[in-house]
Amino acid sequence: MQNEVDSMFSLDLLFDFYGQLLTDHQRCIFEAVMFDDRSVSEVAREEGISRQSVSDLLKRVREQLDGYESRLGLVGRFRDERKALGEIRTLAEAALRTGDMEPVAEILGIVKRLEQME
Amino acid sequence: MQNEVDSMFSLDLLFDFYGQLLTDHQRCIFEAVMFDDRSVSEVAREEGISRQSVSDLLKRVREQLDGYESRLGLVGRFRDERKALGEIRTLAEAALRTGDMEPVAEILGIVKRLEQME
Repeated sequence: MQNEVDSMFSLDLLFDFYGQLLTDHQRCIFEAVMFDDRSVSEVAREEGISRQSVSDLLKRVREQLDGYESRLGLVGRFRDERKALGEIRTLAEAALRTGDMEPVAEILGIVKRLEQME
Repeated sequence: MQNEVDSMFSLDLLFDFYGQLLTDHQRCIFEAVMFDDRSVSEVAREEGISRQSVSDLLKRVREQLDGYESRLGLVGRFRDERKALGEIRTLAEAALRTGDMEPVAEILGIVKRLEQME
């Protein structure tokens, strides 16, 4: 499952944001396969359901998580802000190292751009 | 409805984040009352449903939006980041005004703290 990347964002990132919108049962099975590295067969046996049921549930979870992101776009929004934070850090470090104020002006530009974003 | 503030965040902010998880019908009625400043009676008449139905729907919408925030916490997360951005802007402006590097060191501290947040 880990290798089937066809979402814009990785499944574990989507799960981190929207996992609480899934049912307990969905979360339990998703976590077993994604994070505890258990096979679909093992999980099916433990849950007393068919392999096909586990596969279907995982497919449905992926669709739901993708659906949440396509409607809410919060993972993308956060990723943009985090990227900007990295830029600010680099610029602040450069200013402190060199004593130059030019990077500080750039920081201000980045912050203003972010504040204008919806 | 605007004055009944008992959520941690305002309803319009919660709607901005999670509104796309509501049904079209819920969104339409919510927007009419919250943003188009129409009364519950007017909306009820236009939709051909009872005032009670409109009130119940609005109550349910509020519960759903609160529920999304209590499960996902994304409005709070964004608000914290936006607050930090304001602090960074103020510090960058101070550094540029005074030529002092102390505020830049503070910016770096804020960014590192934010990057460590989950």
